Amino acid sequence: MKKIKLHISYDGTDFSGFQRQPGQRTIQAELENALTALMREKIEIHGSGRTDAGVHAQGQICHFVTSSPIPAEKIAYILRNMLPRDIVAVSSEEVPSDFHARKSAHWKTYRYQIDTRCAPDVFSRRYRTHLPYAVDFQAMREAAGYLVGTHDFTSLCSAKTQVEDRVRTIYRCEVIEEEHGYAIEVTGSGFLYNMVRILAGTLVEVGRKHIDPKAISVILAARDRTKAGPTFPPEGLVLMEVGYTPWNNM
Amino acid sequence: MKKIKLHISYDGTDFSGFQRQPGQRTIQAELENALTALMREKIEIHGSGRTDAGVHAQGQICHFVTSSPIPAEKIAYILRNMLPRDIVAVSSEEVPSDFHARKSAHWKTYRYQIDTRCAPDVFSRRYRTHLPYAVDFQAMREAAGYLVGTHDFTSLCSAKTQVEDRVRTIYRCEVIEEEHGYAIEVTGSGFLYNMVRILAGTLVEVGRKHIDPKAISVILAARDRTKAGPTFPPEGLVLMEVGYTPWNNM
Repeated sequence: MKKIKLHISYDGTDFSGFQRQPGQRTIQAELENALTALMREKIEIHGSGRTDAGVHAQGQICHFVTSSPIPAEKIAYILRNMLPRDIVAVSSEEVPSDFHARKSAHWKTYRYQIDTRCAPDVFSRRYRTHLPYAVDFQAMREAAGYLVGTHDFTSLCSAKTQVEDRVRTIYRCEVIEEEHGYAIEVTGSGFLYNMVRILAGTLVEVGRKHIDPKAISVILAARDRTKAGPTFPPEGLVLMEVGYTPWNNM
Repeated sequence: MKKIKLHISYDGTDFSGFQRQPGQRTIQAELENALTALMREKIEIHGSGRTDAGVHAQGQICHFVTSSPIPAEKIAYILRNMLPRDIVAVSSEEVPSDFHARKSAHWKTYRYQIDTRCAPDVFSRRYRTHLPYAVDFQAMREAAGYLVGTHDFTSLCSAKTQVEDRVRTIYRCEVIEEEHGYAIEVTGSGFLYNMVRILAGTLVEVGRKHIDPKAISVILAARDRTKAGPTFPPEGLVLMEVGYTPWNNM
Protein backbone atom coordinates (compact mmCIF):
# COMPACT_ATOMS: atom_id res chain seq x y z
CA MET A 1 0.00 0.00 0.00
CA LYS A 2 1.24 3.47 -0.78
CA LYS A 3 -0.06 6.96 -0.12
CA ILE A 4 -0.45 9.35 -3.06
CA LYS A 5 -0.64 13.14 -2.89
CA LEU A 6 -2.62 14.59 -5.80
CA HIS A 7 -2.60 18.24 -6.90
CA ILE A 8 -5.78 19.21 -8.75
CA SER A 9 -7.29 22.38 -10.25
CA TYR A 10 -10.95 22.86 -10.98
CA ASP A 11 -13.46 25.32 -12.34
CA GLY A 12 -16.15 25.08 -9.64
CA THR A 13 -18.91 26.72 -11.74
CA ASP A 14 -20.69 23.52 -12.70
CA PHE A 15 -20.12 21.58 -9.46
CA SER A 16 -22.18 21.35 -6.28
CA GLY A 17 -18.95 21.77 -4.31
CA PHE A 18 -16.11 19.44 -3.40
CA GLN A 19 -17.81 16.97 -1.11
CA ARG A 20 -19.64 13.92 -2.45
CA GLN A 21 -23.43 14.26 -2.16
CA PRO A 22 -26.00 11.82 -3.54
CA GLY A 23 -27.33 12.85 -6.95
CA GLN A 24 -25.03 15.87 -7.23
CA ARG A 25 -22.06 16.56 -9.51
CA THR A 26 -19.14 17.04 -7.11
CA ILE A 27 -15.35 17.15 -7.40
CA GLN A 28 -14.94 14.26 -4.95
CA ALA A 29 -17.36 12.00 -6.85
CA GLU A 30 -15.74 12.71 -10.24
CA LEU A 31 -12.25 12.08 -8.81
CA GLU A 32 -13.18 8.94 -6.90
CA ASN A 33 -15.02 7.50 -9.89
CA ALA A 34 -12.05 8.12 -12.21
CA LEU A 35 -9.47 6.86 -9.67
CA THR A 36 -11.51 3.74 -8.86
CA ALA A 37 -11.66 2.90 -12.58
CA LEU A 38 -7.93 3.61 -13.06
CA MET A 39 -6.66 1.79 -9.94
CA ARG A 40 -9.13 -1.09 -10.29
CA GLU A 41 -9.93 -0.84 -6.58
CA LYS A 42 -12.26 1.35 -4.54
CA ILE A 43 -10.49 4.67 -3.90
CA GLU A 44 -11.53 7.17 -1.25
CA ILE A 45 -9.97 10.61 -1.43
CA HIS A 46 -9.34 13.12 1.36
CA GLY A 47 -9.10 16.77 0.41
CA SER A 48 -7.26 19.54 2.26
CA GLY A 49 -10.74 20.93 2.85
CA ARG A 50 -14.10 21.28 1.15
CA THR A 51 -14.84 24.09 -1.23
CA ASP A 52 -18.45 25.29 -1.59
CA ALA A 53 -20.57 25.07 -4.71
CA GLY A 54 -19.17 27.43 -7.37
CA VAL A 55 -15.79 27.95 -5.67
CA HIS A 56 -12.68 27.19 -7.77
CA ALA A 57 -9.26 25.73 -6.99
CA GLN A 58 -5.90 26.33 -8.57
CA GLY A 59 -4.05 24.20 -6.01
CA GLN A 60 -6.35 21.82 -4.16
CA ILE A 61 -4.49 18.91 -2.56
CA CYS A 62 -5.93 15.43 -1.91
CA HIS A 63 -4.50 12.14 -0.74
CA PHE A 64 -5.54 8.55 -1.13
CA VAL A 65 -4.16 5.09 -0.44
CA THR A 66 -3.73 2.46 -3.13
CA SER A 67 -2.14 -0.91 -3.80
CA SER A 68 -2.00 -0.25 -7.56
CA PRO A 69 1.38 -0.79 -9.25
CA ILE A 70 0.92 2.35 -11.43
CA PRO A 71 3.94 4.62 -10.76
CA ALA A 72 2.84 7.51 -8.51
CA GLU A 73 4.06 10.24 -10.91
CA LYS A 74 2.09 8.76 -13.84
CA ILE A 75 -1.28 8.83 -12.07
CA ALA A 76 -1.99 12.53 -12.72
CA TYR A 77 -1.01 12.17 -16.36
CA ILE A 78 -3.34 9.23 -17.01
CA LEU A 79 -6.11 10.76 -14.89
CA ARG A 80 -6.12 13.93 -17.04
CA ASN A 81 -7.57 11.98 -19.94
CA MET A 82 -10.24 10.36 -17.77
CA LEU A 83 -11.55 13.46 -15.99
CA PRO A 84 -14.06 15.99 -17.35
CA ARG A 85 -12.44 19.16 -18.70
CA ASP A 86 -13.33 21.25 -15.66
CA ILE A 87 -11.07 19.19 -13.35
CA VAL A 88 -7.36 18.95 -14.14
CA ALA A 89 -5.03 16.51 -12.37
CA VAL A 90 -1.85 18.62 -12.25
CA SER A 91 0.61 16.26 -10.54
CA SER A 92 0.87 13.22 -8.27
CA GLU A 93 3.61 11.86 -6.04
CA GLU A 94 4.11 9.26 -3.34
CA VAL A 95 4.21 10.66 0.22
CA PRO A 96 5.06 9.15 3.63
CA SER A 97 2.22 7.23 5.29
CA ASP A 98 1.74 9.94 7.94
CA PHE A 99 0.89 12.62 5.36
CA HIS A 100 -2.73 13.81 5.52
CA ALA A 101 -4.08 16.37 3.02
CA ARG A 102 -6.15 18.14 5.69
CA LYS A 103 -4.34 17.45 8.99
CA SER A 104 -0.83 18.09 7.64
CA ALA A 105 -1.83 21.41 6.02
CA HIS A 106 -0.13 24.38 7.73
CA TRP A 107 -1.63 27.20 5.74
CA LYS A 108 -3.92 27.95 2.82
CA THR A 109 -4.05 30.85 0.40
CA TYR A 110 -7.35 31.99 -1.07
CA ARG A 111 -7.89 34.69 -3.66
CA TYR A 112 -11.09 36.65 -4.28
CA GLN A 113 -11.23 38.20 -7.77
CA ILE A 114 -13.31 41.24 -8.75
CA ASP A 115 -14.03 42.71 -12.19
CA THR A 116 -14.77 46.46 -12.06
CA ARG A 117 -15.41 47.01 -15.78
CA CYS A 118 -18.69 48.64 -16.63
CA ALA A 119 -19.56 45.68 -18.90
CA PRO A 120 -18.21 42.44 -17.38
CA ASP A 121 -15.43 40.62 -19.25
CA VAL A 122 -17.05 37.51 -20.75
CA PHE A 123 -13.82 35.48 -20.59
CA SER A 124 -13.26 35.86 -16.85
CA ARG A 125 -16.91 36.04 -15.78
CA ARG A 126 -16.79 32.53 -14.32
CA TYR A 127 -13.86 33.48 -12.04
CA ARG A 128 -14.45 37.08 -11.07
CA THR A 129 -17.36 38.77 -9.33
CA HIS A 130 -18.66 41.77 -11.26
CA LEU A 131 -18.68 44.89 -9.06
CA PRO A 132 -18.38 47.99 -11.28
CA TYR A 133 -17.70 50.39 -8.40
CA ALA A 134 -14.71 52.52 -7.54
CA VAL A 135 -13.06 51.52 -4.26
CA ASP A 136 -10.54 53.19 -1.95
CA PHE A 137 -7.57 50.78 -1.99
CA GLN A 138 -5.83 52.67 0.79
CA ALA A 139 -8.79 52.16 3.14
CA MET A 140 -9.06 48.49 2.14
CA ARG A 141 -5.37 47.93 2.87
CA GLU A 142 -5.67 49.57 6.26
CA ALA A 143 -8.65 47.31 7.07
CA ALA A 144 -6.76 44.24 5.78
CA GLY A 145 -3.96 45.11 8.23
CA TYR A 146 -6.36 44.81 11.19
CA LEU A 147 -7.36 41.31 10.06
CA VAL A 148 -3.81 39.98 10.08
CA GLY A 149 -2.96 38.14 13.30
CA THR A 150 -4.67 35.65 15.60
CA HIS A 151 -8.32 36.51 16.26
CA ASP A 152 -11.68 34.95 17.03
CA PHE A 153 -13.34 35.15 13.60
CA THR A 154 -16.95 34.52 14.72
CA SER A 155 -18.00 37.83 13.10
CA LEU A 156 -16.50 36.75 9.78
CA CYS A 157 -17.96 33.27 9.42
CA SER A 158 -21.41 31.97 8.59
CA ALA A 159 -23.87 32.04 11.49
CA LYS A 160 -24.39 28.34 10.65
CA THR A 161 -20.76 27.50 11.54
CA GLN A 162 -20.75 24.44 13.81
CA VAL A 163 -17.10 24.54 14.91
CA GLU A 164 -16.71 25.77 18.51
CA ASP A 165 -13.18 27.17 18.26
CA ARG A 166 -13.27 30.13 15.88
CA VAL A 167 -9.74 31.33 16.60
CA ARG A 168 -7.63 31.37 13.43
CA THR A 169 -4.45 33.13 12.35
CA ILE A 170 -4.26 35.25 9.21
CA TYR A 171 -0.62 35.55 8.12
CA ARG A 172 -1.14 37.87 5.17
CA CYS A 173 -4.02 39.79 3.61
CA GLU A 174 -3.30 41.80 0.46
CA VAL A 175 -5.41 43.93 -1.84
CA ILE A 176 -3.92 43.70 -5.34
CA GLU A 177 -4.81 46.21 -8.06
CA GLU A 178 -5.18 44.57 -11.45
CA GLU A 179 -6.16 45.56 -14.96
CA HIS A 180 -9.92 46.24 -14.87
CA GLY A 181 -10.30 45.05 -11.29
CA TYR A 182 -8.61 43.88 -8.15
CA ALA A 183 -8.06 40.78 -6.03
CA ILE A 184 -7.94 40.10 -2.30
CA GLU A 185 -5.41 37.44 -1.32
CA VAL A 186 -5.39 35.95 2.12
CA THR A 187 -3.11 33.34 3.67
CA GLY A 188 -4.09 31.81 6.98
CA SER A 189 -3.75 28.81 9.27
CA GLY A 190 -7.27 27.75 8.34
CA PHE A 191 -10.60 29.28 7.39
CA LEU A 192 -14.09 28.94 8.84
CA TYR A 193 -17.29 28.38 6.82
CA ASN A 194 -17.77 31.27 4.31
CA MET A 195 -14.94 33.19 6.03
CA VAL A 196 -13.10 34.35 2.88
CA ARG A 197 -16.34 35.36 1.16
CA ILE A 198 -17.39 37.43 4.20
CA LEU A 199 -13.87 38.86 4.56
CA ALA A 200 -14.00 39.96 0.89
CA GLY A 201 -17.51 41.37 1.35
CA THR A 202 -16.35 43.33 4.40
CA LEU A 203 -13.20 44.71 2.76
CA VAL A 204 -15.19 45.86 -0.28
CA GLU A 205 -17.68 47.60 2.04
CA VAL A 206 -14.66 49.42 3.50
CA GLY A 207 -13.46 50.23 -0.03
CA ARG A 208 -16.87 51.66 -0.89
CA LYS A 209 -16.78 53.80 2.32
CA HIS A 210 -19.71 51.97 3.90
CA ILE A 211 -17.51 50.69 6.76
CA ASP A 212 -14.66 52.63 8.35
CA PRO A 213 -11.37 50.68 8.24
CA LYS A 214 -10.88 51.29 11.98
CA ALA A 215 -14.20 49.53 12.65
CA ILE A 216 -12.62 46.16 11.76
CA SER A 217 -11.31 45.68 15.31
CA VAL A 218 -14.77 46.47 16.71
CA ILE A 219 -16.38 44.03 14.26
CA LEU A 220 -13.97 41.26 15.28
CA ALA A 221 -14.45 41.97 19.02
CA ALA A 222 -18.26 41.79 18.66
CA ARG A 223 -18.18 38.08 17.69
CA ASP A 224 -21.41 38.73 15.81
CA ARG A 225 -21.87 37.84 12.14
CA THR A 226 -24.37 40.68 11.60
CA LYS A 227 -21.68 43.31 12.26
CA ALA A 228 -19.58 42.37 9.19
CA GLY A 229 -20.21 42.89 5.47
CA PRO A 230 -22.14 40.60 3.08
CA THR A 231 -21.18 37.06 2.06
CA PHE A 232 -19.85 37.53 -1.46
CA PRO A 233 -20.87 35.09 -4.22
CA PRO A 234 -18.77 31.96 -4.76
CA GLU A 235 -17.66 32.63 -8.36
CA GLY A 236 -14.89 35.08 -7.41
CA LEU A 237 -13.21 32.69 -4.97
CA VAL A 238 -10.22 30.48 -5.76
CA LEU A 239 -8.29 28.18 -3.41
CA MET A 240 -4.78 29.02 -4.62
CA GLU A 241 -2.38 26.92 -2.57
CA VAL A 242 -2.17 24.63 0.44
CA GLY A 243 1.09 24.69 2.38
CA TYR A 244 2.72 21.68 4.05
CA THR A 245 5.93 21.43 6.03
CA PRO A 246 8.79 20.27 3.83
CA TRP A 247 9.02 16.79 5.33
CA ASN A 248 5.36 16.18 4.54
CA ASN A 249 5.92 17.60 1.09
CA MET A 250 8.91 15.20 0.65
CA MET B 1 -36.02 54.76 -37.65
CA LYS B 2 -32.44 54.76 -36.45
CA LYS B 3 -29.49 52.46 -36.98
CA ILE B 4 -27.71 51.07 -33.92
CA LYS B 5 -24.17 49.69 -33.81
CA LEU B 6 -23.75 47.13 -31.04
CA HIS B 7 -20.42 45.88 -29.65
CA ILE B 8 -20.71 42.41 -28.10
CA SER B 9 -18.39 39.83 -26.53
CA TYR B 10 -19.16 36.16 -26.20
CA ASP B 11 -17.79 32.89 -24.94
CA GLY B 12 -18.54 30.66 -27.93
CA THR B 13 -18.11 27.36 -26.04
CA ASP B 14 -21.79 26.63 -25.56
CA PHE B 15 -23.08 28.07 -28.87
CA SER B 16 -23.57 26.46 -32.27
CA GLY B 17 -21.92 29.52 -33.80
CA PHE B 18 -23.12 33.04 -34.58
CA GLN B 19 -25.74 32.43 -37.23
CA ARG B 20 -29.34 31.55 -36.37
CA GLN B 21 -30.15 27.91 -37.07
CA PRO B 22 -33.42 26.16 -36.20
CA GLY B 23 -33.26 24.29 -32.89
CA GLN B 24 -29.71 25.47 -32.09
CA ARG B 25 -28.42 27.86 -29.44
CA THR B 26 -26.77 30.66 -31.44
CA ILE B 27 -25.52 34.17 -30.71
CA GLN B 28 -27.84 35.68 -33.32
CA ALA B 29 -30.94 33.98 -31.90
CA GLU B 30 -30.14 35.01 -28.31
CA LEU B 31 -29.48 38.61 -29.36
CA GLU B 32 -32.51 38.91 -31.63
CA ASN B 33 -34.79 37.40 -28.99
CA ALA B 34 -33.55 39.80 -26.31
CA LEU B 35 -33.63 42.84 -28.62
CA THR B 36 -37.10 42.00 -29.93
CA ALA B 37 -38.37 41.83 -26.33
CA LEU B 38 -36.59 45.06 -25.36
CA MET B 39 -37.55 47.10 -28.44
CA ARG B 40 -41.09 45.69 -28.64
CA GLU B 41 -40.67 45.16 -32.38
CA LYS B 42 -39.12 42.42 -34.48
CA ILE B 43 -35.36 43.07 -34.64
CA GLU B 44 -33.04 41.50 -37.18
CA ILE B 45 -29.30 41.86 -36.53
CA HIS B 46 -26.43 41.88 -39.02
CA GLY B 47 -23.02 40.83 -37.74
CA SER B 48 -19.61 41.82 -39.13
CA GLY B 49 -19.33 38.14 -40.02
CA ARG B 50 -20.27 34.72 -38.70
CA THR B 51 -18.12 32.92 -36.20
CA ASP B 52 -18.14 29.11 -36.16
CA ALA B 53 -19.37 26.92 -33.32
CA GLY B 54 -17.02 27.24 -30.36
CA VAL B 55 -15.27 30.41 -31.59
CA HIS B 56 -15.26 33.41 -29.22
CA ALA B 57 -15.47 37.16 -29.72
CA GLN B 58 -14.02 40.00 -27.71
CA GLY B 59 -15.16 42.66 -30.19
CA GLN B 60 -17.91 41.41 -32.50
CA ILE B 61 -19.91 44.24 -34.10
CA CYS B 62 -23.55 44.05 -35.19
CA HIS B 63 -26.07 46.56 -36.46
CA PHE B 64 -29.84 46.70 -36.49
CA VAL B 65 -32.57 49.19 -37.30
CA THR B 66 -35.22 50.20 -34.79
CA SER B 67 -37.98 52.73 -34.22
CA SER B 68 -37.74 52.34 -30.43
CA PRO B 69 -37.38 55.57 -28.42
CA ILE B 70 -34.82 53.94 -26.04
CA PRO B 71 -31.65 56.10 -26.16
CA ALA B 72 -29.00 54.32 -28.29
CA GLU B 73 -26.34 54.40 -25.55
CA LYS B 74 -28.68 52.77 -22.99
CA ILE B 75 -29.48 49.72 -25.13
CA ALA B 76 -26.27 47.81 -24.28
CA TYR B 77 -26.71 48.54 -20.58
CA ILE B 78 -30.30 47.23 -20.45
CA LEU B 79 -29.49 44.32 -22.75
CA ARG B 80 -26.76 43.09 -20.37
CA ASN B 81 -29.37 42.12 -17.82
CA MET B 82 -31.49 40.30 -20.41
CA LEU B 83 -28.78 38.23 -22.07
CA PRO B 84 -27.33 34.93 -20.82
CA ARG B 85 -23.98 35.33 -19.02
CA ASP B 86 -21.95 34.06 -21.98
CA ILE B 87 -22.93 37.05 -24.16
CA VAL B 88 -22.06 40.56 -22.96
CA ALA B 89 -23.43 43.69 -24.63
CA VAL B 90 -20.43 46.01 -24.22
CA SER B 91 -21.70 49.24 -25.82
CA SER B 92 -24.22 50.64 -28.29
CA GLU B 93 -24.40 53.86 -30.29
CA GLU B 94 -26.40 55.38 -33.12
CA VAL B 95 -24.64 55.33 -36.52
CA PRO B 96 -25.41 56.89 -39.92
CA SER B 97 -27.92 54.98 -42.02
CA ASP B 98 -25.22 53.88 -44.51
CA PHE B 99 -23.25 52.00 -41.82
CA HIS B 100 -23.24 48.22 -42.31
CA ALA B 101 -21.53 45.91 -39.80
CA ARG B 102 -20.21 43.60 -42.55
CA LYS B 103 -19.92 45.80 -45.64
CA SER B 104 -18.37 48.79 -43.84
CA ALA B 105 -15.72 46.64 -42.09
CA HIS B 106 -12.22 47.43 -43.35
CA TRP B 107 -10.25 44.96 -41.32
CA LYS B 108 -10.58 42.30 -38.63
CA THR B 109 -8.17 41.04 -36.02
CA TYR B 110 -8.30 37.43 -34.84
CA ARG B 111 -6.21 35.84 -32.11
CA TYR B 112 -5.44 32.13 -31.72
CA GLN B 113 -4.42 31.21 -28.16
CA ILE B 114 -2.33 28.18 -27.17
CA ASP B 115 -1.56 26.75 -23.73
CA THR B 116 1.76 24.84 -23.63
CA ARG B 117 1.62 23.75 -19.99
CA CYS B 118 2.06 20.05 -19.40
CA ALA B 119 -1.27 20.00 -17.49
CA PRO B 120 -3.73 22.45 -19.10
CA ASP B 121 -4.78 25.49 -17.08
CA VAL B 122 -8.38 24.85 -16.02
CA PHE B 123 -9.27 28.58 -15.98
CA SER B 124 -8.31 29.28 -19.59
CA ARG B 125 -9.18 25.86 -21.06
CA ARG B 126 -12.28 27.27 -22.76
CA TYR B 127 -10.21 29.90 -24.61
CA ARG B 128 -6.87 28.26 -25.35
CA THR B 129 -5.99 25.12 -27.27
CA HIS B 130 -3.80 22.75 -25.26
CA LEU B 131 -0.60 21.91 -27.19
CA PRO B 132 2.14 21.02 -24.71
CA TYR B 133 4.96 21.12 -27.27
CA ALA B 134 8.02 23.32 -27.61
CA VAL B 135 7.98 25.48 -30.74
CA ASP B 136 10.60 27.51 -32.60
CA PHE B 137 9.27 31.08 -32.42
CA GLN B 138 11.92 32.34 -34.81
CA ALA B 139 10.77 29.93 -37.52
CA MET B 140 7.11 30.76 -36.86
CA ARG B 141 7.82 34.48 -37.22
CA GLU B 142 9.67 33.94 -40.46
CA ALA B 143 6.69 31.95 -41.80
CA ALA B 144 4.25 34.60 -40.57
CA GLY B 145 6.21 37.16 -42.56
CA TYR B 146 5.54 35.26 -45.79
CA LEU B 147 1.79 35.35 -45.09
CA VAL B 148 1.64 39.13 -44.81
CA GLY B 149 0.53 40.80 -48.05
CA THR B 150 -2.07 40.17 -50.74
CA HIS B 151 -2.31 36.51 -51.75
CA ASP B 152 -4.73 33.92 -53.04
CA PHE B 153 -5.47 31.99 -49.81
CA THR B 154 -7.07 28.90 -51.41
CA SER B 155 -4.46 26.71 -49.65
CA LEU B 156 -5.39 28.18 -46.26
CA CYS B 157 -9.17 27.90 -46.38
CA SER B 158 -11.58 25.00 -46.07
CA ALA B 159 -11.94 22.89 -49.22
CA LYS B 160 -15.69 23.53 -48.76
CA THR B 161 -15.25 27.30 -49.31
CA GLN B 162 -17.85 28.49 -51.80
CA VAL B 163 -16.49 31.99 -52.45
CA GLU B 164 -14.80 32.26 -55.84
CA ASP B 165 -12.40 35.12 -55.07
CA ARG B 166 -9.93 33.86 -52.46
CA VAL B 167 -7.60 36.85 -52.67
CA ARG B 168 -7.27 38.57 -49.29
CA THR B 169 -4.76 40.92 -47.69
CA ILE B 170 -3.06 40.14 -44.39
CA TYR B 171 -1.78 43.39 -42.88
CA ARG B 172 -0.10 41.90 -39.83
CA CYS B 173 0.65 38.43 -38.46
CA GLU B 174 2.39 38.20 -35.09
CA VAL B 175 3.49 35.33 -32.87
CA ILE B 176 3.33 36.53 -29.26
CA GLU B 177 5.10 34.65 -26.47
CA GLU B 178 3.04 34.55 -23.29
CA GLU B 179 3.27 33.01 -19.86
CA HIS B 180 2.74 29.25 -20.32
CA GLY B 181 1.93 29.55 -24.00
CA TYR B 182 1.71 31.80 -27.00
CA ALA B 183 -0.79 33.50 -29.30
CA ILE B 184 -0.97 34.14 -33.03
CA GLU B 185 -2.57 37.48 -33.93
CA VAL B 186 -3.58 38.26 -37.46
CA THR B 187 -5.15 41.38 -38.93
CA GLY B 188 -6.52 41.24 -42.46
CA SER B 189 -8.98 42.71 -44.93
CA GLY B 190 -11.18 39.65 -44.51
CA PHE B 191 -10.89 35.95 -43.83
CA LEU B 192 -12.11 32.89 -45.70
CA TYR B 193 -13.90 29.91 -44.13
CA ASN B 194 -11.60 28.31 -41.47
CA MET B 195 -8.72 30.48 -42.66
CA VAL B 196 -7.41 31.59 -39.24
CA ARG B 197 -7.67 28.06 -37.83
CA ILE B 198 -5.68 26.67 -40.80
CA LEU B 199 -3.21 29.55 -40.61
CA ALA B 200 -2.63 28.76 -36.89
CA GLY B 201 -2.34 25.03 -37.64
CA THR B 202 0.21 25.75 -40.37
CA LEU B 203 2.33 28.14 -38.28
CA VAL B 204 2.43 25.64 -35.40
CA GLU B 205 3.56 22.93 -37.85
CA VAL B 206 6.38 25.31 -38.77
CA GLY B 207 7.12 25.87 -35.07
CA ARG B 208 7.31 22.12 -34.53
CA LYS B 209 9.73 21.79 -37.48
CA HIS B 210 7.28 19.75 -39.56
CA ILE B 211 7.09 22.47 -42.23
CA ASP B 212 9.99 24.69 -43.32
CA PRO B 213 9.17 28.41 -43.00
CA LYS B 214 10.34 28.97 -46.58
CA ALA B 215 7.72 26.45 -47.78
CA ILE B 216 4.93 28.96 -47.00
CA SER B 217 5.30 30.65 -50.40
CA VAL B 218 5.14 27.26 -52.12
CA ILE B 219 2.04 26.32 -50.09
CA LEU B 220 0.29 29.59 -51.07
CA ALA B 221 1.25 29.20 -54.75
CA ALA B 222 -0.14 25.64 -54.85
CA ARG B 223 -3.73 26.84 -54.19
CA ASP B 224 -4.33 23.42 -52.65
CA ARG B 225 -5.75 22.98 -49.13
CA THR B 226 -3.92 19.65 -48.67
CA LYS B 227 -0.52 21.39 -48.77
CA ALA B 228 -1.12 23.42 -45.57
CA GLY B 229 -1.28 22.35 -41.92
CA PRO B 230 -4.31 21.07 -39.97
CA THR B 231 -7.46 23.04 -39.14
CA PHE B 232 -7.03 23.84 -35.46
CA PRO B 233 -9.97 23.44 -33.05
CA PRO B 234 -12.32 26.40 -32.53
CA GLU B 235 -11.76 26.90 -28.78
CA GLY B 236 -8.48 28.80 -29.18
CA LEU B 237 -9.91 31.35 -31.62
CA VAL B 238 -11.15 34.83 -30.65
CA LEU B 239 -12.44 37.59 -32.96
CA MET B 240 -10.69 40.53 -31.28
CA GLU B 241 -11.67 43.64 -33.19
CA VAL B 242 -13.43 44.82 -36.33
CA GLY B 243 -12.13 48.04 -37.89
CA TYR B 244 -14.27 50.67 -39.59
CA THR B 245 -13.27 53.94 -41.21
CA PRO B 246 -13.68 56.83 -38.77
CA TRP B 247 -16.73 58.31 -40.49
CA ASN B 248 -18.57 55.00 -40.15
CA ASN B 249 -17.39 54.77 -36.57
CA MET B 250 -18.71 58.31 -35.94
